[in-house]
Amino acid sequence: MDEFALIRKHFRKLLPGSSDVLLGVGDDCALLLPPPGEELAVTTDTLVAGRHFDHQLRAEDIGWKSLAVSLSDLAAMGARPRWFVLALTLERTDEDWLEAFTRGLKAMAAAAGIALVGGDTTRGPLSITITAMGTVAAGQALRRSSAKPGDAVCVTGTLGDAALALELGLATQCARFDADREYLKLRLNRPKPRLAAGHALRGLAHAAIDLSDGLAGDLRHILEESWVGAEIWAGKLPQSEAFQHLSPAASRLALQASGGDDYELCVCIPQERLAEARRKVDVPLTEIGRITRTPGLRWLDAAGAALAVELSGYNHFSS
Amino acid sequence: MDEFALIRKHFRKLLPGSSDVLLGVGDDCALLLPPPGEELAVTTDTLVAGRHFDHQLRAEDIGWKSLAVSLSDLAAMGARPRWFVLALTLERTDEDWLEAFTRGLKAMAAAAGIALVGGDTTRGPLSITITAMGTVAAGQALRRSSAKPGDAVCVTGTLGDAALALELGLATQCARFDADREYLKLRLNRPKPRLAAGHALRGLAHAAIDLSDGLAGDLRHILEESWVGAEIWAGKLPQSEAFQHLSPAASRLALQASGGDDYELCVCIPQERLAEARRKVDVPLTEIGRITRTPGLRWLDAAGAALAVELSGYNHFSS
Repeated sequence: MDEFALIRKHFRKLLPGSSDVLLGVGDDCALLLPPPGEELAVTTDTLVAGRHFDHQLRAEDIGWKSLAVSLSDLAAMGARPRWFVLALTLERTDEDWLEAFTRGLKAMAAAAGIALVGGDTTRGPLSITITAMGTVAAGQALRRSSAKPGDAVCVTGTLGDAALALELGLATQCARFDADREYLKLRLNRPKPRLAAGHALRGLAHAAIDLSDGLAGDLRHILEESWVGAEIWAGKLPQSEAFQHLSPAASRLALQASGGDDYELCVCIPQERLAEARRKVDVPLTEIGRITRTPGLRWLDAAGAALAVELSGYNHFSS
Repeated sequence: MDEFALIRKHFRKLLPGSSDVLLGVGDDCALLLPPPGEELAVTTDTLVAGRHFDHQLRAEDIGWKSLAVSLSDLAAMGARPRWFVLALTLERTDEDWLEAFTRGLKAMAAAAGIALVGGDTTRGPLSITITAMGTVAAGQALRRSSAKPGDAVCVTGTLGDAALALELGLATQCARFDADREYLKLRLNRPKPRLAAGHALRGLAHAAIDLSDGLAGDLRHILEESWVGAEIWAGKLPQSEAFQHLSPAASRLALQASGGDDYELCVCIPQERLAEARRKVDVPLTEIGRITRTPGLRWLDAAGAALAVELSGYNHFSS
């Protein structure tokens, strides 16, 4: 089967019938109709086998996660997902793999309401690059650069689950685990981008970022772009029950603050809007610290004393 | 130097000051302002080292060509280039390589008037995925699906230069060649997307495609999508002087019809608009055949007799 037949067969399942897609897969370009008065939000992410996921990871999970990481960026802007293009590099044409990959991709696409509109398939070491596009009403997008001293620093959901799953080696195990391990494995392999939360926080949050590389690293981007600092209460970082049951006490903070792949949102919200934000967001929103005038990121213990820890985010080049 | 510093340092040179870019590199997404009433044209292409280009190819040429192939898709739609995002996977952080790659990319971006608005840098086997976005007035985009029986099949520029350069092994040679070889090498390493020609052909051409995989393969897409056939006069395929001087007579047709990487446009134009099209296009436009009601692609010799040849395009999976 040639390249074109391959693309047609498997990705037809993902072809959109949406009225904002004038021309989808199959021409030199897709032709799309952005809604009048909206801004276009665009993000691109590459997942490389052996680096971002294990070669043994199920194709269905690879499909889901490849799209989820880009959707998480749209969530962090408060944008509504619209269209994506897929650049897929494969070692060989493996029908079973493609079928499963497409199934996972389609499940994520359907959950987010985003349409595949184009792609490129090439042969080479397995990697997936997705460029996702969303739209957001003019001036409403959440940025990294507008956090203000006094803002509550909040995160959606829980932190550290994905990092713990990775440490426990759960990603590629096929055996049926107990409920805790199943939960952690899902958190790593099937992240749920916080699209509804991001959308609800437009006009409420001063700044937002998605936690792909870990809280310590990602929050630092907000601080640098906004010219502020932050105090984070280490004991307040939200933990899932599974995390509480299975994480070694000594490595909890490192897993929660430096572990990547959570795909939760970190948002800075003025104190007086916090209650409203909590009502509007469909997931738990935990206050974990404050934005400060003093630059830098400080970790505090339950008594408010500075913790002598050096935490940093995941760096795709240094590691 | 970490991932973020790396991106900032080298790609800052490419950051736009354009009024349609509200937010460029450095947030979760770029924020762009599509012009009211225009459609968005989007294309994505991956170039993998060792497959689409030789590992020894100069980084500056890789930078140029990575963007050129996507711009060629925008040209084939008649779209005006606006924005692109770059997903770059690198074996290691090599400052000299990055500097040269960025120089080539910037030269192509500047020539086309397109702005880098986002990206992702990861470690892995060298490959480059670019997603390019352009805009085109509503209803004016050139498609593959509207060729009509009787249309003149035309191509811009000349065919076969890139394939000949590849066959002669010119891509990665550093030695200074004679003028013919220099010309062919440039045609392979520094393709010029036919943006002005594509733009000028809106409202004139019935169908268009860019020649990335070779005339035989690419024209077939127009025929299939338009439910028509074509007769192509093998002797009319336009040749550069360098091609005439250096190509072996026996392989000319194969180089011109099956060789990829020309990045010329193949367009189907109604006979009565051909003269107007020639005046408006800034490069030679050569009539090479006719669209027919009879399906299939037939190659004819100078006497109009069918040539018994089997020509096909480059297939990224079968080869």
